[in-house]
Amino acid sequence: MNSRLHPLLYLDDLCFGQAFASDPYVMEEARMKSFAGEFDPQPFHLDDTAATESVFRGLAASGWHTAAATMRMLVEGELHIAGGSIGLGGEINWPRPTRAGDTLTVTSEILEIVPSRSKPNQGIVKVRNTTFNQNGEPVKIFTANLLMFRRPAET
Amino acid sequence: MNSRLHPLLYLDDLCFGQAFASDPYVMEEARMKSFAGEFDPQPFHLDDTAATESVFRGLAASGWHTAAATMRMLVEGELHIAGGSIGLGGEINWPRPTRAGDTLTVTSEILEIVPSRSKPNQGIVKVRNTTFNQNGEPVKIFTANLLMFRRPAET
Repeated sequence: MNSRLHPLLYLDDLCFGQAFASDPYVMEEARMKSFAGEFDPQPFHLDDTAATESVFRGLAASGWHTAAATMRMLVEGELHIAGGSIGLGGEINWPRPTRAGDTLTVTSEILEIVPSRSKPNQGIVKVRNTTFNQNGEPVKIFTANLLMFRRPAET
Repeated sequence: MNSRLHPLLYLDDLCFGQAFASDPYVMEEARMKSFAGEFDPQPFHLDDTAATESVFRGLAASGWHTAAATMRMLVEGELHIAGGSIGLGGEINWPRPTRAGDTLTVTSEILEIVPSRSKPNQGIVKVRNTTFNQNGEPVKIFTANLLMFRRPAET
């Protein structure tokens, strides 16, 4: 995994406003359709003609495929979190469709850093993960609450 | 698709508080691991021993796999929306992990029905989709804003 190239980050390593990049991910049409066939079998994700006549005006990836691809980019990206990228939840939006052949990237921006009062070794970090297409247009915005750990005293 | 068994619903067919069920979906361990390998390659989603030592205390599905499985249940479930299930976004939470062998179901509850002022043929419906495991415990809650259409005058 590319993530091996990036240093492991603890709560102590983050600053408000800090931003992290990812490698690109290409949305391939065949994978878009097979993902939709398994998890989101709706005509506008499966069939070019039906998609043209839908509100998407053309074949669109399942929003959950865009979300899953985003997770892959996060796991292998610069925001390489000690203990793993553990999302408790958050606000998700898909402002426009992802299209076949789109090259996606994710930028993660630190919005809040809140150490736990009851558990001194951990905290919650709010991160806005914006997934862009190759034209710089956001296709997904996920403002997530992540569980993060403080750097152990012995290191 | 099972969805063919359920009547197509327009904005006009919904009531505040109405609830819709789904068929079950079994989370198979092999699919959990292959999904994670492609989209969320973290040790607690891939390796039983590493998972036992993680905050999940055992192998856990990627939250995006739980989300994708939920979408499959929604598409084939009772909330069978005319024009398709088109989510604009919403609030997502994973209160506990999904485990290998879990049998999931989704209940969808109508929270808000807001006809568009500018587009008389459509509206936004807020739906709380709660995904339960076989013990009746929520594993995912997704409060979604869906685009829905009014029943055409001619039908």
